[in-house]
Amino acid sequence: MPDALAPFRDLLGEGGVLSEPDRTAAYTLDHRELMRGQTEAVLRPRSVAEVQGLVRLARAQGYGLVPQGGNTGYVGGATPEPGRRQLVVSLERMTRIRGVDPLNFTLACDAGVILAEAQRAASEHDLLLPLSLGSEGSCRLGGNLGTNAGGLQVLRYGMTRDLVLGIEAVLPDGALFSDMRTLRKNNIGYDLKQAFIGAEGTLGIVTGVVLKLWPAQAFRATAWLQLSAGAPVPEIAALVRRETSDLATTFELISASSLGLVAEMRGADPGLRAGPGGAVLLELQASSARIPLDDVLMGTLEHLMEQGFVEDAVLAQSETQRRAMWAIRETIPEGEKHAGGSVKHDIAVPVSQLTAFLDRGGALLSERMPEVRLSFYGHVGDGNIHYNLVVPQGRDRLAFTREIEAGIAHDLYAIAIDLGGSFSAEYGIGRFKRDLLARYGDPTRLGLIAAVKRAFDPEDVMNAGAMLVEPPDA
Amino acid sequence: MPDALAPFRDLLGEGGVLSEPDRTAAYTLDHRELMRGQTEAVLRPRSVAEVQGLVRLARAQGYGLVPQGGNTGYVGGATPEPGRRQLVVSLERMTRIRGVDPLNFTLACDAGVILAEAQRAASEHDLLLPLSLGSEGSCRLGGNLGTNAGGLQVLRYGMTRDLVLGIEAVLPDGALFSDMRTLRKNNIGYDLKQAFIGAEGTLGIVTGVVLKLWPAQAFRATAWLQLSAGAPVPEIAALVRRETSDLATTFELISASSLGLVAEMRGADPGLRAGPGGAVLLELQASSARIPLDDVLMGTLEHLMEQGFVEDAVLAQSETQRRAMWAIRETIPEGEKHAGGSVKHDIAVPVSQLTAFLDRGGALLSERMPEVRLSFYGHVGDGNIHYNLVVPQGRDRLAFTREIEAGIAHDLYAIAIDLGGSFSAEYGIGRFKRDLLARYGDPTRLGLIAAVKRAFDPEDVMNAGAMLVEPPDA
Repeated sequence: MPDALAPFRDLLGEGGVLSEPDRTAAYTLDHRELMRGQTEAVLRPRSVAEVQGLVRLARAQGYGLVPQGGNTGYVGGATPEPGRRQLVVSLERMTRIRGVDPLNFTLACDAGVILAEAQRAASEHDLLLPLSLGSEGSCRLGGNLGTNAGGLQVLRYGMTRDLVLGIEAVLPDGALFSDMRTLRKNNIGYDLKQAFIGAEGTLGIVTGVVLKLWPAQAFRATAWLQLSAGAPVPEIAALVRRETSDLATTFELISASSLGLVAEMRGADPGLRAGPGGAVLLELQASSARIPLDDVLMGTLEHLMEQGFVEDAVLAQSETQRRAMWAIRETIPEGEKHAGGSVKHDIAVPVSQLTAFLDRGGALLSERMPEVRLSFYGHVGDGNIHYNLVVPQGRDRLAFTREIEAGIAHDLYAIAIDLGGSFSAEYGIGRFKRDLLARYGDPTRLGLIAAVKRAFDPEDVMNAGAMLVEPPDA
Repeated sequence: MPDALAPFRDLLGEGGVLSEPDRTAAYTLDHRELMRGQTEAVLRPRSVAEVQGLVRLARAQGYGLVPQGGNTGYVGGATPEPGRRQLVVSLERMTRIRGVDPLNFTLACDAGVILAEAQRAASEHDLLLPLSLGSEGSCRLGGNLGTNAGGLQVLRYGMTRDLVLGIEAVLPDGALFSDMRTLRKNNIGYDLKQAFIGAEGTLGIVTGVVLKLWPAQAFRATAWLQLSAGAPVPEIAALVRRETSDLATTFELISASSLGLVAEMRGADPGLRAGPGGAVLLELQASSARIPLDDVLMGTLEHLMEQGFVEDAVLAQSETQRRAMWAIRETIPEGEKHAGGSVKHDIAVPVSQLTAFLDRGGALLSERMPEVRLSFYGHVGDGNIHYNLVVPQGRDRLAFTREIEAGIAHDLYAIAIDLGGSFSAEYGIGRFKRDLLARYGDPTRLGLIAAVKRAFDPEDVMNAGAMLVEPPDA
């Protein structure tokens, strides 16, 4: 029996094809460990030409391909499905910083570059790449693009889509779509690169990217706010935007329950308290010392206290204090894990509907699952809320996850959608939310999605099974 | 002979169908008066349902459709072509502001709303719609979307694409694509609305739009800078970004020659001078009085003078002085018209390549057309430069335009493209730059454009002839 992988080994070299199950295992298990995928091999190209070559080979031999970045996604978008004969394409050996243009404020990279490395390349030139996620130490730019990643600084800088100026991608027939221009303005026909952003690897394999940069934000002012009972978070967020002249980069709502999880994990009082309305971590940043950030922050806080929205506030007086505040926010996921894990709902609503969502969601949970602890927090300045249910003690995490996702999750999504919101703010569809897309996508929208997929990938080579329940021509 | 327009009259009412040549003439002449189009009728729907109805009728009767906003485009994108049997669809009767959500910072509108009206609707809530163009008093949002309009504040707020959260569009088969969500984060499959932005009406008729708003920028500081000889504009622009912490909303380079045209038109010294390196109109804006804009601007100017980049600067001390500075910038197009008109080149280069472009472009012109006056100015902070050739006295404007566009324009575009730039920064392709797109678009890109067009509009109903030289299946 001929070795179907031999041509791939010829093309990519021995280290370029992993086929032993113990070597491929890490690539076939999704980040949340909910799905064990299956593949004959993981392909690890070193160049754009090798990506083009492997795409042509795969197509000729009837393999499907699953592009994978850091494999840190939450929805199984990079996991090869059993029964589909899919090879994984990992860009982990394509990690070249192609160039920084400090006067143009742009960074060009291979798509396999780890996000933190790209941030570092920018900061070496005293510039900022504002994309910032919990997984930035292991996620890769191609994955960020494929999922249109959001993260911690969307309020000021937008989603990944807002940061992308150029893309290079290998199409399902092996041709190269190259649009690596570093231009902010370029109206020359359909902006095709938009199609690859958030497409979850279903239209091609992104191999390169040009990102916008900003001047490094070397100056910061940070505060921890204790919200009054019934404090209207949307109004507060709007006031903060106005009073700080949009210098706020962070507006993280932290519920008392999320803070409690941090305290339990640490076995100690975290030192900062939530008010009756919860807490907010607020940070302002500037690139110039000419902006008196402390004054702006103080004045804003005074204004919020005069309005009765904030009971008390602590200003970080040193970098140590600032880090302590951030550590609380960043420890919440760990706190949830320590308590037994959590089921996450990646919900977005218009900022103005946030209170309505929290009220209605809270009422639903009290009625149907009074025993379950809720942990909610998030970058609510952009309408995104992480609404997580902690796995009750003694329950199996996976079984509880499946119960929630088959049950009350749908009711939470229905509330969000009723308020003009979304069942996926930033994680995407992947393989775990296909049914939700099919349920909530209207037929016209679903028809266009299928038509676009067909236009780019008529043979369904690229990441079949992600996003779309059926192949596009079914 | 049956009246082919009768069903349209039944659908839209008498005022909804203009067919007398004197009524349609204004809709068939492009804004620059370079092309006299031809149509049997202009259709003026009042509702989304009427748009759907007219699309179905047109398709059934073999008419093509040309969506038109304010007809202020520069590239003939909204002009019905002789020989194509196209009806114009004007959204000028769909002008409803659907709603402002001040806490969510969003505005929902019919696509026929005039840009200035949308700005006004935002400002009534103390909010800012930052899209701002010379034609804002007559252009319509649908046209801004279709062309991905840029304008005066791209430096800080981005292009139209960056401002759009939601779109509603009637597809070529009459179905309604409705994605009017007001969410900043919503990753639920392909972001199809992106396809309609900058598509020049070739994929459907945009009928509604949701735009992002910002807090009103009630506080301003404005200065006029005289640049030193050889002052490096890209470095200055980068310093301004950093030193003002990106509070600069305007960085308009104004050449001595453009300033001269203003002086000639006025028959008087405009009161402000260009330095040997030209002039820059610089403005900072903030939404809060807590930001000491005057100090930030002064400090920035001192820094630029210390570096030797700026010889002298004038700070606007009153709103009157500020308006006088702006009036100079805004009068340049009129100054060009007064001198006999101009041929515009809508060029973009990476900001870092701006000086190289000006050097090479200038050398080319001195050699080949030493008698022609150059007027260049623009929002160079985003890499866009308006590079206009003044029609020499005694020459016919149209004949000169055609001579330039068939000749030296190509050499200027070739320089821009060689520097990583573009032959169309913000005007788009339309009917006047189709040949340039065909020339400079690589085959893979052109193939994808055709595939997308086919996926959305297989019968080529929508704005045939715009952007694409050939119908997509030719």
